[in-house]
Amino acid sequence: MIVKIIVDAFGGDNAPLEILKGCADAVNELDVDILLTGDEETIRRVAKNHQIPLYRMEIVHTKSVITMEDHPNAVLKEKADSSMAEGLRLLAEGKGDAFVSAGNSGALTMGTTMLVKRIKGIKRVAFGAILPRLNGNMLLLDSGANVECRPEMLYQFGLMGSIYMEKVMGVKNPRIALANVGEEEHKGSELYQQTYQLLKNDPSLNFIGNVEGRDMPGDTADVIVADGFTGNMILKTFEGVALFVLKMVKDVFCKSTKNKLAAAVIKNDLSELKRSMDYNETGGAPIMGALKPVFKAHGSAKANTLKNAIRLTKEYVANHVVEVISQSVKGNITNNA
Amino acid sequence: MIVKIIVDAFGGDNAPLEILKGCADAVNELDVDILLTGDEETIRRVAKNHQIPLYRMEIVHTKSVITMEDHPNAVLKEKADSSMAEGLRLLAEGKGDAFVSAGNSGALTMGTTMLVKRIKGIKRVAFGAILPRLNGNMLLLDSGANVECRPEMLYQFGLMGSIYMEKVMGVKNPRIALANVGEEEHKGSELYQQTYQLLKNDPSLNFIGNVEGRDMPGDTADVIVADGFTGNMILKTFEGVALFVLKMVKDVFCKSTKNKLAAAVIKNDLSELKRSMDYNETGGAPIMGALKPVFKAHGSAKANTLKNAIRLTKEYVANHVVEVISQSVKGNITNNA
Repeated sequence: MIVKIIVDAFGGDNAPLEILKGCADAVNELDVDILLTGDEETIRRVAKNHQIPLYRMEIVHTKSVITMEDHPNAVLKEKADSSMAEGLRLLAEGKGDAFVSAGNSGALTMGTTMLVKRIKGIKRVAFGAILPRLNGNMLLLDSGANVECRPEMLYQFGLMGSIYMEKVMGVKNPRIALANVGEEEHKGSELYQQTYQLLKNDPSLNFIGNVEGRDMPGDTADVIVADGFTGNMILKTFEGVALFVLKMVKDVFCKSTKNKLAAAVIKNDLSELKRSMDYNETGGAPIMGALKPVFKAHGSAKANTLKNAIRLTKEYVANHVVEVISQSVKGNITNNA
Repeated sequence: MIVKIIVDAFGGDNAPLEILKGCADAVNELDVDILLTGDEETIRRVAKNHQIPLYRMEIVHTKSVITMEDHPNAVLKEKADSSMAEGLRLLAEGKGDAFVSAGNSGALTMGTTMLVKRIKGIKRVAFGAILPRLNGNMLLLDSGANVECRPEMLYQFGLMGSIYMEKVMGVKNPRIALANVGEEEHKGSELYQQTYQLLKNDPSLNFIGNVEGRDMPGDTADVIVADGFTGNMILKTFEGVALFVLKMVKDVFCKSTKNKLAAAVIKNDLSELKRSMDYNETGGAPIMGALKPVFKAHGSAKANTLKNAIRLTKEYVANHVVEVISQSVKGNITNNA
């Protein structure tokens, strides 16, 4: 089965050029069909000017674009004719298998919830950010969709994250941990204490307890559960500190001629490290819990980021993540009844 | 005036040996008097075995020790005869100018609040963690004393942090930022939205708005305000990621003989960087808002960490931080009345 990915051609800081490049690379390397939403004339002109083939890409013309400054609900109201809103509607109507956008996160969350809808029984959709750690990756969710959460939401984030890591990332029996300020059960606010009990009491989950920020970059857990405020804080601090330290290392390299010469030798290996630490490289975050696959690509996505986002989205579709989550939630509802 | 620092000789993972070494170095280099609390016989034996001079150090004998496993209120109850509890009582009685402990944070917070008491008008004491950033340091508070906070508490953390950075760290007109998930005023939970307004509406503070985790390591702010749960998450993630990235860099260095040779050239400069990133090196965190200066040294404090903690504590005393906070709070109460 050929997967068809709907792509917001006007989402993110580098749209539409880098988006189109990424789509062309995805068609070539990943054997997918693309359905682009956006201003058709601009898409065709940019593609022509940069000799980007539009092979296996349809275009659905749309008029407006959601910017980073727009309020989230613009996607439902004054910008209901935007490339993002149209992409979400096309997905809901079954015109493609998944939707990818590098645009405004808040609008994408709201649009996903209202136009694509949630899986029955799922209380909130969540951003699942993929972060590097020792010996692999981990999924941090919610990394920013929900500022305020209840324990059942956090419990569901753990459940969905576990399914993602198993089905898409190929991790067997993923270790789920709750982000917290200490390892003991009684740590954290009431929200965290209650979530701890919910995760602990589900025998189908491999819950390993609380994890502190210090231990996250180690090979400790595969899924990190947090409310969207805390998760976003962890995500951004993670990103900021990693880049900061690498910059400091670079400064050491430039400190003297002797250092510069030494640095030249290890430059390539260090660039590779920088890429592996760059969360932009992983593509972005699936919006977990939506009735159909929606993927948030990083706002500053370049062609390669977008291609990676499409690759992960294709895996998401091919591994039936939505159906597995749906079944798990049904099972839970029956068990608890 | 000679400052006398009361030191918990049995707090932390490396007590009493590293604590005693740190105190001896402090006496030598910082011209302070020390009052040690702990088991006198053990202190004298360890000092003798390691040839640590106890010059300018008094000892007040205590029987028990608070461990990391003890519940915070042990300091008031079953371990009221501990080195930590006695140190806090001696401080309250005026037998020294400040108290330093590398022991159990929760117990130290509770003991400080109940035995030393808070400055009048201050709603909660807060841990102020000193973190490295581009071109200097920043103070993150609360970094773990209060899991649940109200807006007025966060506002006071900003006020106290500003005083600390100005008086102890010598920063003119310190920039205060609120940790948040976006720069706009309306971002975050109600707690953060209301705190934003309180900080913004105080003309005596140099409030620069919200700061995301990504921008904290840059030269963005001097004081970062957060609730204790979020602050602790930022602090630990910061620490964990910095050490993780440096470990990854080290792995690159060991990857091949060619890399190893190059690494040898820059080894010293990199060790210096590692030290500057190590939050253990800065000594720890003042417990801001207490009626007398209490300083939490890092739990894994070695001699050098403890000496740094004593140095910062001495500055805290010499610059009358408690009095300045007390005056500022009084001013606020009068202004708001």
